[in-house]
This record gives sequence, structure tokens and C-alpha cells, in this order.
Amino acid sequence: LKIALLAGDGIGPEVIDQAVKVSNAVAEKFNHEINWESALTGAAAIDAVGEPYPDETHEVCLNADAVLFGAIGHPRFDNDPSAKVRPEQGLLKMRQKLGLFANVRPTFTFPSLIDKSPLKRERIEGTDLVFLRELTGGIYFGKRGREDDGNTAFDTCTYTRAEVERLARKGFEMARQRSKKLCCVDKANVLETSRLWRETVQNLEKDYPDVEVSYEFVDAVAMRLIQWPNAYDVLITENLFGDVLTDEASVISGSMGLMPSASLGEKTSLFEPIHGSYPQAAGKDIANPLATVLSAAMMFETAFGLQAEADAIRTVVNKSLAEGVVTEDLAEGGKAHKTSQVGDWLA
Amino acid sequence: LKIALLAGDGIGPEVIDQAVKVSNAVAEKFNHEINWESALTGAAAIDAVGEPYPDETHEVCLNADAVLFGAIGHPRFDNDPSAKVRPEQGLLKMRQKLGLFANVRPTFTFPSLIDKSPLKRERIEGTDLVFLRELTGGIYFGKRGREDDGNTAFDTCTYTRAEVERLARKGFEMARQRSKKLCCVDKANVLETSRLWRETVQNLEKDYPDVEVSYEFVDAVAMRLIQWPNAYDVLITENLFGDVLTDEASVISGSMGLMPSASLGEKTSLFEPIHGSYPQAAGKDIANPLATVLSAAMMFETAFGLQAEADAIRTVVNKSLAEGVVTEDLAEGGKAHKTSQVGDWLA
Ligand SMILES: CC(C)[C@H](C(=O)O)[C@@H](O)C(=O)O
Ligand SMILES: CC(C)[C@H](C(=O)O)[C@@H](O)C(=O)O
Repeated sequence: LKIALLAGDGIGPEVIDQAVKVSNAVAEKFNHEINWESALTGAAAIDAVGEPYPDETHEVCLNADAVLFGAIGHPRFDNDPSAKVRPEQGLLKMRQKLGLFANVRPTFTFPSLIDKSPLKRERIEGTDLVFLRELTGGIYFGKRGREDDGNTAFDTCTYTRAEVERLARKGFEMARQRSKKLCCVDKANVLETSRLWRETVQNLEKDYPDVEVSYEFVDAVAMRLIQWPNAYDVLITENLFGDVLTDEASVISGSMGLMPSASLGEKTSLFEPIHGSYPQAAGKDIANPLATVLSAAMMFETAFGLQAEADAIRTVVNKSLAEGVVTEDLAEGGKAHKTSQVGDWLA
Repeated sequence: LKIALLAGDGIGPEVIDQAVKVSNAVAEKFNHEINWESALTGAAAIDAVGEPYPDETHEVCLNADAVLFGAIGHPRFDNDPSAKVRPEQGLLKMRQKLGLFANVRPTFTFPSLIDKSPLKRERIEGTDLVFLRELTGGIYFGKRGREDDGNTAFDTCTYTRAEVERLARKGFEMARQRSKKLCCVDKANVLETSRLWRETVQNLEKDYPDVEVSYEFVDAVAMRLIQWPNAYDVLITENLFGDVLTDEASVISGSMGLMPSASLGEKTSLFEPIHGSYPQAAGKDIANPLATVLSAAMMFETAFGLQAEADAIRTVVNKSLAEGVVTEDLAEGGKAHKTSQVGDWLA
């Protein structure tokens, strides 16, 4: 198994280390050989070679069977809107050059952590939904600029039928494997791109007669998602709506430190925790590594088709939660373990 | 006081009736004379004259000191993407032609209803925030269309510095009247329009040195808004982000049936409940009229500068909640009153 390892910035390297330990342990148990190849991204890459997604890193990713990614971003850039080169550009360039068109973000609750959620237990018990966010189109990649001496700015959101169809088919297929419910989230009462989304999904319905499809406006979903998350199974949506709604949904579980994600391309796929680089915690060995470890589980399952290996990781993660082998964000009165201790225990 | 009355569709007419009763009672008590002038909007206007915001309605609004609005929308149009004339178009046309550039949406909790929220009491106690959503620009009003035989769709988001500044100044002024905290919500790490927003707000900071300004990304706010709504005071944002975030925020209070809003223009202002036309309840005399009644309170305060009148309305609304004179959505085991009974009691 050839895996590109992009640790990135902030807590990225620390949480990635634990996912490597756990993956190696799984590989040993199930007789696989993992070939890790590290490469630079984000602020770390800007410092080293002047840009956030260098060509050498892209080569490493192209030659791998999967990419395991930490996080990128550094506060030094956030407070400087004039910075010409920014870590986030690397992220967008990586998504585009690797063709990572579908960002898969599950939201579920852990029975032992359910009371950490800001939402009431009875609202979220049993929640198990997954967003498919389109990741290489829309307003993220359209034409943008200034006119009128910099006093007018514009961004363009563009979608083609083929882009929508590719993402929607993944959604239909995923719904088939789950509760057979698909929700298309758009703003078709205002946007032309949304009308194209809705039309395209409607045309696909006949190919998946066993899947029940609903269409909801993004503002209504932003509400219902926290009122009754249980109502949803698979949700498909465009890039910017997905950015907002998946972060909103991550609150349900009670800890961002637990939620993994996958970004699927035609050839390569990438796996990463949904939390960011969390610079305040960097280097302190206190960050929660579970989202990254669970991203490795998604990698075994999705990129390599190795289900038992993925299940082994999930089982040991649940065990660590049940036995209280957790980092300080989940310790709540109990003993707070270090990032590296949790990784060792899991491995 | 000359007030244009646009009841609209669904439960609009019923809830508007109660706001009229209450406003008339307040007018009598405080010695004002109200001159109501009704006009058609929405599906009702489409049925009567073929379009959702007729010129005669616009005339009525222009000649009034304020507009009190119910709701528009009808399911008959939602399931027909090919409908050429739609109620929502009337809403957008009205906002644009009346120049309603700032949508003011408060979110607060009612002590007696706090346990109806899907969020835990300790997260939301004391929440009192207000969104200022830009309402006549952005992707709602930019160029849109199809290319490539209908297989490519696009929408354009445009903002000028003047549009941002106008909205932002309202935000700064509102923050001054409240806790002096302003949060600018954008996606400046990706969008050029967001960078213009951030730049413009930064340039205004020096004019309001007593206001503490923060800048947050829309995805982060979508999360933090449900995690710690107490952290916010005044939030300013562009049209589409505002659409999503204000609906999300409305969940905090536990009932959409309670939240009022104001849309401010240079000359005319409009006041409306944030709930929609709720067609399932139309004609049944069961809808909660409080959001509309509280919108009338905002009208007295904001459009007419009549504070005591606004306070009188809010006081009697709180009394109705405390004494359980409420519609079925809030009755919870107690007696459910009719829409019209609640209105009579308040008046
Ligand atoms: C960092 C930013 C550009 C990125 C996005 O908006 O896609 C992030 O929020 C995410 O969701 O991965
Ligand atoms: C009906 C729709 C066009 C409208 C909007 O998106 O502005 C509504 O959601 C609102 O928030 O008033």
C-alpha cells in the first residue's frame, strides 16, 4: 500500500504520527506492507520552497494509492489579507490538480460522548448522516476579480451538467448502501446553478428507482439539520453550501476532534480530519488524534477496499473512548492522555 | 401613521390580522391614528393580476411610512421548476425596488420557552444577537444564465464598496447601541467579494473606535453559532450567507413562530415575521401570530421612533407567554388558543 503522507501545519504532524502508528499496526496484523512517502504542504511548504502545494508534492500524491493529510493553515497568514501566497491556496490547488471532486463527510454520534453535544440527547440520538460536497467546482474555482479601480468585486459560480451528475451518482450509490434516502440541497428558488443541480438530479432519479429523493433549500437545511438531524441520510450539495453545512453538522457529534473525511477523485483519494491546524495546540502533544485515525480507517475501507482493517481501527477507537484513554478535550475530570499516548495505546 | 399592509399567502393574512388588532390597540392607547392600506403580493397577486409584486402594490408601499408584511409562497410553485412567474420573484423585486438593503434579524430567547430549544439551556441562556444581512446585492441580483446548450449554468456575485459600506455602517451603529461588538462574516480566504467586504469594514474601524470588530469565516460561524451563540452581538454579512445563517440562528430560540425582522431602506422600511407562508396551516386559525406582532413592535420602534409603543407590545407578548395564552405550537399540554384568540387577548 503506497500512501502519500502530507502532515501539513499546526497539529497536523502530531495527529498524523498517530494515524501512521495505528495504520502500521493494522498492516502488521493483516499482513500488508505500507510504503509511506512524506511531502510538504501548507505553510510548511511555503517556508521551505515558497509555495503551498509544490510540484514535487503533487508527484508524490499522483504516484500513491492514497493520500493521508493532516491540516494546513497558519495564523501568520490570516491576519495579513495582502499575503500573495497563502496556505489555503495549496489546499484548493491540491483538490483541483488531484481532481478530488467529492468530499465525503460523515456525521455520527458516539454513544459515550453524546452528552458533550450542545444539542439535546433526544434530538441527536442515532444520527448517522453523510454529506457529499462537490469539491472542485462552483464559486471556489470560477472567475473572480475587481473592476472600477478596485471598488467592485465579483466571483462567479459555474457548474456543468457533467460535474453535477458525477457527484450526484456518487450520492445515489452511497444512498443505496445506506438508508436509501438522498437529499439534494440547493437554492433553486434563486440560483441558476441550483436549478441545473435540481434538474440533473431529477433526471437521474429514474436510474435509481429504489432511492427516495428530496429537494430542500440550503436555508431550510441549515435549520432542520440542528432541529432533527435524524431526518437525513445522504445529502449532496455544491461546494460553498457544503463548506458551511458540513461544518455546522460537525457540531452535532460534540467534538470536531472526532470527525474524519474522504475526498474522492477519479484516480487518487485523500483522507483527512475535518478539524483545522489548531495552531494554539501545536507542538504540545495535546491534540485529539482520533479524527485522523478514523480518516485512516476510511482510507483502508474506501481506497483499498479493506473492510476488516477499517473495522479493526474503529473498534479500537470505540474501546479507547469507553475506557477513557482520551486527550484532554474529552477527559472531563478523568485523566487526560497525551496525543502520543493515545496513539501508542491504539496501536 | 400610514402603513402598507401586505398580507401575502398561506398563514400571512391570519397573522397579519392579529398584528393589525394589536397595532390599533396601541395606537388608541397612545393617541395615534393609523391609516392602513392593503395591497396584493405573492401567489395571491399572481392569481389576481398575473404577477407577484404589481406596480400598484409598489405605489402603495412608496406612499406609506412603513410596510407590514406577512409571508409569500405557495406549494403549487415549488413543485414546478418550469413556472415562469413565481411568488419569490415578487419578494426579490420588492426588496430591490424599495431599496431594502439591510435585513435586521434578532435572535433571542424567551425565559419561559428556553427549554423548547433543541440546544441545551446552558448554551443559549442569555443569547441576544442580531444579524444584519445585506439584502439587495450579491449573488441574488448578479448576472446569471446558461451556456453550452443549457449544460453550463452560472451565477455572479457582485458587491461594490458603497454597498458594503452602507450595510457595515448600520452594523457599527447598531453595535454602539448594544454590546459594542461587531463580527464581519465572510469567506475572505476564497472569495474576492469577501475580501472587499473585509477591506471595507477594516477601513471603517477608525470611525468607530469604541466598537470591537472581529472577522470570521462563514463556515466557522455556522459552527460557533450553535456552540456558543452567547459569543456574538451584532453580525454583518452578505446576502446569501445571511440567508443561511439567519435561518440557522432562528433555531436557537426554539420557535420560528416568535422571531420578527425588519428590512431597512433609505426611505421605506418593511417588517415581517421570519417564518414562511406555512401553507399546511393556512386558514385553520392555528398559526402563531407572535412573530408578526413582534414585527409590528419593531415597526413602531424603528420606523416611527415610538419606543413606549414598541415596549407595550413586547410586554403584553411576554405576558401572554407567561400566562399560557398561546397557540398550539407552544401549548405543550396546556390549552391551545386560536390565532385570533391570541390576537384578541393581546389587543
Ligand atoms: C480552508 C478553506 C479554503 C476550506 C474550504 O473552504 O474548502 C476549508 O474550510 C474546508 O472546508 O476544507
Ligand atoms: C424565498 C427566498 C427567496 C428568500 C431568500 O432567500 O432571501 C427567503 O429564504 C428569505 O430569507 O427571505
